[in-house]
Amino acid sequence: MSAPLRLDFTSDNVTGASPEVLAALAAANAGTVASYGADPLSEVLMRRAAELFERPVAILPVATGTAANALALSVLARPFEAIYCHPAAHVMTDECGAPEFYTGGAKLIGLPSVDGRLTPGQLAEAVGFARGMGVHHVRPAAVTVSQASEWGTVYGLAPLRALCSAAHELGLRVHMDGARFANAVARLGCSPADATWRAGVDVLSFGASKNGALAAEAVVAFDPSLAAELGLRRKRAGHLWSKMRFLSAQLVAYLDGGLWLRNARHANDMARRLADGITALPGVTLAHAVEANEIFVAVPPTLIGALRAAGYGFYEWPPPAGVAAPVARFVTAFDTTAADVDGLLAAAGLGHR
Amino acid sequence: MSAPLRLDFTSDNVTGASPEVLAALAAANAGTVASYGADPLSEVLMRRAAELFERPVAILPVATGTAANALALSVLARPFEAIYCHPAAHVMTDECGAPEFYTGGAKLIGLPSVDGRLTPGQLAEAVGFARGMGVHHVRPAAVTVSQASEWGTVYGLAPLRALCSAAHELGLRVHMDGARFANAVARLGCSPADATWRAGVDVLSFGASKNGALAAEAVVAFDPSLAAELGLRRKRAGHLWSKMRFLSAQLVAYLDGGLWLRNARHANDMARRLADGITALPGVTLAHAVEANEIFVAVPPTLIGALRAAGYGFYEWPPPAGVAAPVARFVTAFDTTAADVDGLLAAAGLGHR
Amino acid sequence: MSAPLRLDFTSDNVTGASPEVLAALAAANAGTVASYGADPLSEVLMRRAAELFERPVAILPVATGTAANALALSVLARPFEAIYCHPAAHVMTDECGAPEFYTGGAKLIGLPSVDGRLTPGQLAEAVGFARGMGVHHVRPAAVTVSQASEWGTVYGLAPLRALCSAAHELGLRVHMDGARFANAVARLGCSPADATWRAGVDVLSFGASKNGALAAEAVVAFDPSLAAELGLRRKRAGHLWSKMRFLSAQLVAYLDGGLWLRNARHANDMARRLADGITALPGVTLAHAVEANEIFVAVPPTLIGALRAAGYGFYEWPPPAGVAAPVARFVTAFDTTAADVDGLLAAAGLGHR
Amino acid sequence: MSAPLRLDFTSDNVTGASPEVLAALAAANAGTVASYGADPLSEVLMRRAAELFERPVAILPVATGTAANALALSVLARPFEAIYCHPAAHVMTDECGAPEFYTGGAKLIGLPSVDGRLTPGQLAEAVGFARGMGVHHVRPAAVTVSQASEWGTVYGLAPLRALCSAAHELGLRVHMDGARFANAVARLGCSPADATWRAGVDVLSFGASKNGALAAEAVVAFDPSLAAELGLRRKRAGHLWSKMRFLSAQLVAYLDGGLWLRNARHANDMARRLADGITALPGVTLAHAVEANEIFVAVPPTLIGALRAAGYGFYEWPPPAGVAAPVARFVTAFDTTAADVDGLLAAAGLGHR
Repeated sequence: MSAPLRLDFTSDNVTGASPEVLAALAAANAGTVASYGADPLSEVLMRRAAELFERPVAILPVATGTAANALALSVLARPFEAIYCHPAAHVMTDECGAPEFYTGGAKLIGLPSVDGRLTPGQLAEAVGFARGMGVHHVRPAAVTVSQASEWGTVYGLAPLRALCSAAHELGLRVHMDGARFANAVARLGCSPADATWRAGVDVLSFGASKNGALAAEAVVAFDPSLAAELGLRRKRAGHLWSKMRFLSAQLVAYLDGGLWLRNARHANDMARRLADGITALPGVTLAHAVEANEIFVAVPPTLIGALRAAGYGFYEWPPPAGVAAPVARFVTAFDTTAADVDGLLAAAGLGHR
Repeated sequence: MSAPLRLDFTSDNVTGASPEVLAALAAANAGTVASYGADPLSEVLMRRAAELFERPVAILPVATGTAANALALSVLARPFEAIYCHPAAHVMTDECGAPEFYTGGAKLIGLPSVDGRLTPGQLAEAVGFARGMGVHHVRPAAVTVSQASEWGTVYGLAPLRALCSAAHELGLRVHMDGARFANAVARLGCSPADATWRAGVDVLSFGASKNGALAAEAVVAFDPSLAAELGLRRKRAGHLWSKMRFLSAQLVAYLDGGLWLRNARHANDMARRLADGITALPGVTLAHAVEANEIFVAVPPTLIGALRAAGYGFYEWPPPAGVAAPVARFVTAFDTTAADVDGLLAAAGLGHR
Repeated sequence: MSAPLRLDFTSDNVTGASPEVLAALAAANAGTVASYGADPLSEVLMRRAAELFERPVAILPVATGTAANALALSVLARPFEAIYCHPAAHVMTDECGAPEFYTGGAKLIGLPSVDGRLTPGQLAEAVGFARGMGVHHVRPAAVTVSQASEWGTVYGLAPLRALCSAAHELGLRVHMDGARFANAVARLGCSPADATWRAGVDVLSFGASKNGALAAEAVVAFDPSLAAELGLRRKRAGHLWSKMRFLSAQLVAYLDGGLWLRNARHANDMARRLADGITALPGVTLAHAVEANEIFVAVPPTLIGALRAAGYGFYEWPPPAGVAAPVARFVTAFDTTAADVDGLLAAAGLGHR
Repeated sequence: MSAPLRLDFTSDNVTGASPEVLAALAAANAGTVASYGADPLSEVLMRRAAELFERPVAILPVATGTAANALALSVLARPFEAIYCHPAAHVMTDECGAPEFYTGGAKLIGLPSVDGRLTPGQLAEAVGFARGMGVHHVRPAAVTVSQASEWGTVYGLAPLRALCSAAHELGLRVHMDGARFANAVARLGCSPADATWRAGVDVLSFGASKNGALAAEAVVAFDPSLAAELGLRRKRAGHLWSKMRFLSAQLVAYLDGGLWLRNARHANDMARRLADGITALPGVTLAHAVEANEIFVAVPPTLIGALRAAGYGFYEWPPPAGVAAPVARFVTAFDTTAADVDGLLAAAGLGHR
């Protein structure tokens, strides 16, 4: 007997965990081990991270993406400083002010763009304004980019390098919100090192929860000297698990044998399948390019109705400038099946009869 | 083949999780469910909490005790207010300033006592001083008690009621750090309601990680109207899991069939066995009463040496006033066996040959 | 011998203090009086404030407008809440994150408009978005309006009432940044009560430094029960002067005999004279309506050059959308003379020869 | 006609300002000058500070001692760090948590001593404890000493050097709360440089309000590279006056011709006169050595009654350990006259008839 078709396409966090990750938790359970990260699995994770990124890194696991982002930003910006981001960035709109909390009141400043990606020119203009204001304005300190972006697009390596280079020249450090980092790397087909520090990223939020873990993300600082401050801040924020083995075990399993990329590639493939199928329907157009595992499509209202009637879950999104039709967001995950996608497409097709 | 004898008595967080809790995680994995706490298991947990405490409560699961304590205190004290506690309280010395972080800079003020428990007279004196200082001093707002205390003692119900009553008369609200709440309730033999809100506790940090969970605690507010603020603060702190089912599942399993009390009773019994055995040795005396699962004993230096030589792990503690001998702390857990204890006692006995 | 003509039109804070205010400081100097605000002059100020606003108020003097604004906002928004404002508001761009600091990380959210004034529709839309986001977004709490606005415009009483009414219906409290409150009231020709609480303002930053004081502003809360929290927060921020008589003396003198309105009317008149004169020059147009003591004019580059050559100080401003010419800002003050203005106009006229 | 005898000995902040300081304000009033510290008087102050301390310094005037202390500490300790101080220090008990506010939640840890002064051994022990705790405890960062201390004692140069040296070896930076720095320097008879950076002080709160200014203190950082962060933090805290000339003018006048030391020497002399006189009465003994301008004396209750009956103002203080009698605190100021002191002594003498 097969599983019922998935109806919930609202997000990649409505899924459970990969079986490999659950098995790793069970395997990690035996015996007494030192608490607070001095256990063997946490040491394995540190080695794996260094191998994965081809350099020494500081890696600090935490349970949520919000925690990872806010912790990361707290070591990049002081309370009297500015962090630049896209106005729709998760840190700006979806974390209830976590960056402001962790940084002690640093200011997130939104730089709008149509595709969710920032440009060097935007940074230069914003920093120029701030510098001209002297002590009256928060001091420019950092920029954070979402990879994949909130709108499912992915920075190419060249644009990412250009942005990081501009940031560094302006005295800014670069954070990457990688809640869907695996999906972006799968898209780019490059190494994790190329996708991050070789392009100029200083600190990465390495996501796993949306792509196979129960609850595991990691702050990865490419300057390992940040480890001490990050460690104190993580403890202070209540994100240092006493039984850290259970956090490290998830991440080790996630990396083992390339599970993370395998999962992400599958989710991306399913997104492509869904995008291709749905845009073949009359009156349906992409609102944003589909470059990871999110699909934003402008659709006829009848299609919305048909899917809702069939029990499908998905978000309706504010349409971008110039788009009149409602925009629907669908998100695929590591365990979305082709049958799941085809089921949705079939239901959508009924909206066009 | 039996497991090797346990050598690590440093803490109850060096253990894994109860099998029941691990099984619950696996069972929770199937299918898509709403994220961020709108899942069926989280609803079950809310019902269970109301039953357990015999009243409506707000319960917010988080992964660590530090997070639970700091979140709880953040709704009890404003940034310009005072929180009274024992100077050795976990919130004071072991959380890297988490309460200051979460409250936005409220002040923890230590009130010393020899047994780890606070008294009404101490509260009255401290509040009297503060009130006399007007705006120049932080305004009294809350008191936090550790149950069981840092030194393994447990407030009796009558002293707890007296303390809470004094606190309320002084305009303070009461937080209980229940990292070892199960051990305390097992000791008291009363209902969870009697041990908390019926005695005057306003907000409880309900611990589970030390007693069978992987990583699960909960803020329990007996005034459910605190739920909204707690919910925003939890999200802002990065402690709202997207796949909340995995946090709720641990706590539901922890409560199911009384696992939490069974585990705690066993740990307490093992502590009693260890205390009885070790104080039978010459030159060994209790530094604090053993009322939960921690044993503090003043021991001859030779005994320390013998245990270390045998590979045993435990902390040496600053001796209380008037005690000259070194003080060793041993902690038992839900899965410590009688054989484990007897093994330690045998090794300790060798120190007296 | 007369004073030299004023060349500095950059701001109304390049001036000294009104002679009446200086005299009041000298008069306040004699004898010992209780410190920290328990002095007779501070009591006089409290009575005067109640008379001025025709109701009981809490009034807390501080030395700067930034302090007044940030203190005021800190009692209107919790750390996990949102404050709406114009993107060019002083609190947003010119206070180095003071609101974020004082509130413990609340989020200022900018709602753009062409004339510096907010509308009810903007509030409704922003609050609607936030409410739809639940715990993921900061919770709507307050709106702050600048009166006069950053662009020298003044809310009329009807639009102000409509905005406050909408805010209250949406559950928001209203703060008014009155750094140039006197100029606005002089313009409106209404009572201070009509200009504030009768229109729906909850807390006012009552400015004096730009209009005759050395360094004196006041937080005025129309709900006097906010006094206790404001008092603790003021002390905690280091804004409670020990010799408070010297802060109160300035404000009492500022109100005495209507000095504050006399000063403001004069500054507004000078602004009108400057605006009329300069717009009579070819190629000069108002960039914003002149309703207080700031003049924003789009001018030919040659005019900028002529004024600079003559030694005049003023800011060049980013032109509003649709304006191509450079925009110059001139600010008049309580002690700007007609001769000062005519001198500037003469120099400007030379740019057109 | 002479002034009435002073009855208020509660503090040195119940006085007005020195005539020289008031005159300086009036003199500073003329003309327009650049705001926010870019005025000529502020430049004079910077030069004077460098001369006074015989080295380049960063000097940032603010209006209150609480602001100076909290700002100073905010650049010496991060939010996850510890600041050591005496438990009775002003920063600990009298500033409503200002240091916690400005530092973003750093932890003040009190190290008790009978005379208000800290010792190297105390620092070493506290830091040793903290280091042993790792990430679980706030990280040692700074120590703050009050000079003169809360109990009117003054660190000698040798003990101060030893303390600073120990602090630096332990990785701590040293702040000096110099609310009564002038009184201490007058007592020590050394140069300001010897009393501060040559002894190892890193940042000084240079007090003036208690000793002749209206409202003026300054943060003096002996590492001028701290100027940028201090400047941003001062602005963010609302302590950057727009008309900064009025703050700088006070401090320039305070230093001019040695007014600050002349005032302090006089206050100290009056304290000595009061101490000598009152301890000549039967049953009166010093509770602390009188080394600046504060007198703490254990007195018979009848003496308290006699002074109160005569209308005298002063604080009763918690007696130090081992002292049974009530302790009265008297504070003299720059404008206390010998007749004022003799009047008090006469009234006190009546208590012994």
